Amino acid sequence: MPEQPSGASGADVSETLPRIGVLPSGPRDLISDVPGVTVGHATLDHGDVQTGVTVVMPGEGDTFLRKVPAATAVINGFGKSAGLIQVQELGVLETPIALTNTFSVGAVASAQIRAAVSRHPEIGREWSTVNPLVFECNDGYLNDIQAMAVSAEHYAKACQEATAEFAQGSVGAGRGMSSFSFKGGIGSASRIATLPNDQRHTLGALVLANYGRLETLTVAGQPLGRRIAASKPQKANERAEPEKGSIIMIIATDAPLDTRQLERLAKRSAAGLARTGSVYGHGSGDIALAFSSAWRVPHLASEPMPAVRMLHESMLDPLFDACAEAVEQAIVHALWRATTVTGRAGHRREAIANAVPNWRDLLALQHSSERSQ
Amino acid sequence: MPEQPSGASGADVSETLPRIGVLPSGPRDLISDVPGVTVGHATLDHGDVQTGVTVVMPGEGDTFLRKVPAATAVINGFGKSAGLIQVQELGVLETPIALTNTFSVGAVASAQIRAAVSRHPEIGREWSTVNPLVFECNDGYLNDIQAMAVSAEHYAKACQEATAEFAQGSVGAGRGMSSFSFKGGIGSASRIATLPNDQRHTLGALVLANYGRLETLTVAGQPLGRRIAASKPQKANERAEPEKGSIIMIIATDAPLDTRQLERLAKRSAAGLARTGSVYGHGSGDIALAFSSAWRVPHLASEPMPAVRMLHESMLDPLFDACAEAVEQAIVHALWRATTVTGRAGHRREAIANAVPNWRDLLALQHSSERSQ
Amino acid sequence: MPEQPSGASGADVSETLPRIGVLPSGPRDLISDVPGVTVGHATLDHGDVQTGVTVVMPGEGDTFLRKVPAATAVINGFGKSAGLIQVQELGVLETPIALTNTFSVGAVASAQIRAAVSRHPEIGREWSTVNPLVFECNDGYLNDIQAMAVSAEHYAKACQEATAEFAQGSVGAGRGMSSFSFKGGIGSASRIATLPNDQRHTLGALVLANYGRLETLTVAGQPLGRRIAASKPQKANERAEPEKGSIIMIIATDAPLDTRQLERLAKRSAAGLARTGSVYGHGSGDIALAFSSAWRVPHLASEPMPAVRMLHESMLDPLFDACAEAVEQAIVHALWRATTVTGRAGHRREAIANAVPNWRDLLALQHSSERSQ
Amino acid sequence: MPEQPSGASGADVSETLPRIGVLPSGPRDLISDVPGVTVGHATLDHGDVQTGVTVVMPGEGDTFLRKVPAATAVINGFGKSAGLIQVQELGVLETPIALTNTFSVGAVASAQIRAAVSRHPEIGREWSTVNPLVFECNDGYLNDIQAMAVSAEHYAKACQEATAEFAQGSVGAGRGMSSFSFKGGIGSASRIATLPNDQRHTLGALVLANYGRLETLTVAGQPLGRRIAASKPQKANERAEPEKGSIIMIIATDAPLDTRQLERLAKRSAAGLARTGSVYGHGSGDIALAFSSAWRVPHLASEPMPAVRMLHESMLDPLFDACAEAVEQAIVHALWRATTVTGRAGHRREAIANAVPNWRDLLALQHSSERSQ
Repeated sequence: MPEQPSGASGADVSETLPRIGVLPSGPRDLISDVPGVTVGHATLDHGDVQTGVTVVMPGEGDTFLRKVPAATAVINGFGKSAGLIQVQELGVLETPIALTNTFSVGAVASAQIRAAVSRHPEIGREWSTVNPLVFECNDGYLNDIQAMAVSAEHYAKACQEATAEFAQGSVGAGRGMSSFSFKGGIGSASRIATLPNDQRHTLGALVLANYGRLETLTVAGQPLGRRIAASKPQKANERAEPEKGSIIMIIATDAPLDTRQLERLAKRSAAGLARTGSVYGHGSGDIALAFSSAWRVPHLASEPMPAVRMLHESMLDPLFDACAEAVEQAIVHALWRATTVTGRAGHRREAIANAVPNWRDLLALQHSSERSQ
Repeated sequence: MPEQPSGASGADVSETLPRIGVLPSGPRDLISDVPGVTVGHATLDHGDVQTGVTVVMPGEGDTFLRKVPAATAVINGFGKSAGLIQVQELGVLETPIALTNTFSVGAVASAQIRAAVSRHPEIGREWSTVNPLVFECNDGYLNDIQAMAVSAEHYAKACQEATAEFAQGSVGAGRGMSSFSFKGGIGSASRIATLPNDQRHTLGALVLANYGRLETLTVAGQPLGRRIAASKPQKANERAEPEKGSIIMIIATDAPLDTRQLERLAKRSAAGLARTGSVYGHGSGDIALAFSSAWRVPHLASEPMPAVRMLHESMLDPLFDACAEAVEQAIVHALWRATTVTGRAGHRREAIANAVPNWRDLLALQHSSERSQ
Repeated sequence: MPEQPSGASGADVSETLPRIGVLPSGPRDLISDVPGVTVGHATLDHGDVQTGVTVVMPGEGDTFLRKVPAATAVINGFGKSAGLIQVQELGVLETPIALTNTFSVGAVASAQIRAAVSRHPEIGREWSTVNPLVFECNDGYLNDIQAMAVSAEHYAKACQEATAEFAQGSVGAGRGMSSFSFKGGIGSASRIATLPNDQRHTLGALVLANYGRLETLTVAGQPLGRRIAASKPQKANERAEPEKGSIIMIIATDAPLDTRQLERLAKRSAAGLARTGSVYGHGSGDIALAFSSAWRVPHLASEPMPAVRMLHESMLDPLFDACAEAVEQAIVHALWRATTVTGRAGHRREAIANAVPNWRDLLALQHSSERSQ
Repeated sequence: MPEQPSGASGADVSETLPRIGVLPSGPRDLISDVPGVTVGHATLDHGDVQTGVTVVMPGEGDTFLRKVPAATAVINGFGKSAGLIQVQELGVLETPIALTNTFSVGAVASAQIRAAVSRHPEIGREWSTVNPLVFECNDGYLNDIQAMAVSAEHYAKACQEATAEFAQGSVGAGRGMSSFSFKGGIGSASRIATLPNDQRHTLGALVLANYGRLETLTVAGQPLGRRIAASKPQKANERAEPEKGSIIMIIATDAPLDTRQLERLAKRSAAGLARTGSVYGHGSGDIALAFSSAWRVPHLASEPMPAVRMLHESMLDPLFDACAEAVEQAIVHALWRATTVTGRAGHRREAIANAVPNWRDLLALQHSSERSQ
């Protein structure tokens, strides 16, 4: 399998990670390769509390006054994310995109409201209310989720620390997440799509990975999970708990897409997810949101609406490819950037890179046609 | 227009209210005519804080262990209600149905989680998480919504006080709501549907009414809003603020319907709503949920699934009629059961019965064909 | 009830029809008040065959090369209309909009394909295929629907005869339709919406009305059906057959709306429909399509995409009002423009104007507040 | 990659085909392993006309009188299939499932209507109409699709010839289809799912494969398309035409699922499809339908509704796995069972087994962990 030097921040840059697909990445191989997009984390790491908040800032400036075109795809709706109904109806998001654990959605949604109101006291009075947008996964294996430890301060901290060079793995909302019986969490990646008319656009993905059965883990088409299970039969015991996971997939692009097109794009995250071995399990809340940084919608009717030349529909396939690849790559990053975490009741999830030190060997054997290239 | 003695609790039983439609009501003309359904309120009434929580208990026993078949209809998705995605996917609700103001969704959702966890510590650990179900409207005209005054205690109180004989109008979540430039709030009604096979089923509705422009107010087909506007031109000034409303419509029935059928039923609330003059305005989050009390779904797979004989599709029309009538009647009750409230910044919404003391006259004139009946 | 001189073509202009709502109509009170929209009919009227085709041309020029932005709303999906899936996905229509009887959808769809291919032999070869768009209702009471009498020639004739001044009532696809136990068929209307920014836009509706139980017929809020039933008890017998109807509602506007906004608009047809007494009965396929004449999408990627300034979302309410009113008015026109038809097995549907000659009296009695205006 | 003896009919049983996944197949590895399900073809093979009809009979007896629970998933709606709207609303199918080319949908839909009416003259008169269910892909590369050569006789022939032991590949609707620049067509497979409660259920898939770019072709995780392209650079020229494909995926199971659960199941076909390299390309109409053979819904309300014990939601994952595997396997069968076809304008699609005689070598090299098993 081809490998490449990783450009992700906070990691040993000499490290090599599994490389997905054929499209080139942006300079960081992060969602922040889409201009204006930044990401911040607040990580809670004390004893039984292993959780956090991650925030994706969809662009510069005030997202309430200048709303961001967006659409969602509910691939499997066993989930408690907040704000999707209004995004589906109005086609815009108007807050930062927050990710956290399932039981902290309420606290983070309230924090988003407070933050918006403190900036715009007209909200809920002269103006309509604000739609908090919070995605979640259940980190209850490693984290004492019942402690509901995430607060408005954590949301604020994640917003303040948002930057283009952000950490991946066991940070922010990813702190307590599990994936394929290993440590999951935050992963991100980007791809450059070249359209039939030679226009180039950047697409980035950020995932909160908390899903997957070991046996099904597939990396770049290789059945890594089965190979691991075959080489380490004792791992079987660790997978006692039923799959109760989820994955959140945030897609950003600088391509000018309208909300119908963004919905089409968001749905393609299901292809990238499937390639990792998922069948969108019953208990997994698999939810995607796609947004475009290419245009904004003013809150106030007194401001002019933009006149945007959207992409012709026949230009979309390279973006669809990029979406599937970036999601798959981001999942790989979530696994390989993760660090081992011990949490609630001594539960422990090992990072795959530690638990399977010979992962390169398990993935390495290739067909002669590749090796000869 | 036909009128009838009202059976609603807490009101002068000698009072007569506008009567909608042709189907008979249940004994209370409340959603609690559906066996097992109860409703409770917690009302916050101090100065600028005029808000609250209303809870619909969908039946007896533990709704987490024995989940209630349900479906939603998003008629206009300008809304922030929580929990709909999972209800749409799994076809069940597993908590009481909570209603509150827009900015308190997070607090009430968190309270629902805490209540479920305190009863079942397995939730979020051995078991999957719980899906809080919170509906909302924006009461920011009368209520200091930015105070976010609703707490877990209010949710608990509303649950504790749930009863079949509950108050309507300016109570619970309805405390601060406005409708058609008058005081809105909680209304409820019921209808008895006789199916083609002579089976009889009860259908009940409970609404949180916070929508509507005065000019469009229609009661039993009569353009009451236009007549009021014509007779009281000074009212025009009061409608300065744009329509920022919403309506939540909860439908209960004891008919055995599966979730696909419940979704069809929920959509019929749009017909009842339209008859009152609504066109589902852009800024109005118009959302319905329908549930059946006729069967339950066990949380644990170890318990037997029910074998339920659902209604034949051709039996549904009388239930559709009942849904539209009950919703329309519940809206009328919300308006006529309301009491005048003064709240934030001295804002004041008059009860229609006070503001338009001659409403009977405005509605009274009937066609000879009715009068002769 | 207010009445007004009718501007509909092909009718006695001295006739007065029930007038719906408060918004002004366009000059024709037809969907063709939206510039570029025309309508044509082919009517089959021989013995047991009482059916036809109606075509709405969404604008001038080639709709395949320059596709028309459109969206659908499936209010009740008991229907066999063709082409909706692709309109939902791609947000455009690329053929004339055809309406016919249920069993002729296949023939008309095939005719649409042939017409497109004859103009563009690349279709299905160098180019992708074409999406035929055919709506239907079941006219089996008056028409020998099993004869499947509609042919490609009828579709071609309807296209050729398309004009801004078109007939309503028992013509084209409306020939064999029934509504509220009377003769139904084609109706159309228009309304002028004045936006908050004083921009004015035209919205037109065309319906194929084949739905409704007599008792529920409501005209301008008046329970006309109940009054008719009360005054003519013998009518009850005529309603023996169960409701197996449907209504198709085509909405056109010259407002620049994107497809998400057009979907929101299409859904508002449900409000107009409900005001006539419908609860979207189980057996009624109630389907709407809305399109905008303000912009086009080129088929060929080599042609430039338009850069359109869409309406700010807060401008939509007047269009929503216009949609509901125009649909309601179009239904009234379908009933009152209809002529009595006798068809299959001697079945007969009387025009309401003939069957209820005193309909003006039944609607006439008004409240003093209106009469004094 | 593991291989297994093929049980598919009409093929050399000594032949080995790529084997997908880990679940056992039913005895035939065909959709007809679901009891009662049969498949028939009518193949048109003369010169430029290379097309046909395939019919899936969902069970024994009259599907109109005893309707089959079903649901659809529109993965990418660039398609013209007929009948989906009503299946989505009512949750049943009432005709055989027909597959054909895009321009023959109308003819086959009309044939379905005629067939139903000839059996039940009440249809469209005393009874409601019948909902024809026709899926399609565009075979215009090999077939003169503009000839619209499919007739009612072909539909009737396909129905008559339906059998459990049916042919795959370039037959029926698959005659003219292309996939991954090779010959596509009809493929089928089955899997046995063992639920957590040890219940076993059969799930079968039948696909009409007409999609895919060569470079993305993935078989059992192996990038076969890239390897082929690398070993046969001249193949690049053959892929001149843009992707205009589609895939139809029919899923059958004997598990007792309600229509909401069937919709969840149908969506999992997207996972199997993605594993073959698809990202649900813009121009590809990717549509799935799932049905259960475990219960029926009577047409007549006078007949008793069934009282079915549906599966507990937590039992679904093995069926989801089976769906993804069966779809992926069926696609492999469509490719490997295909025979080379030359059609319109001398266009030619080679069977992959002919075009890439060393496909076993290209897939063969395996990781040591598998080889040691």
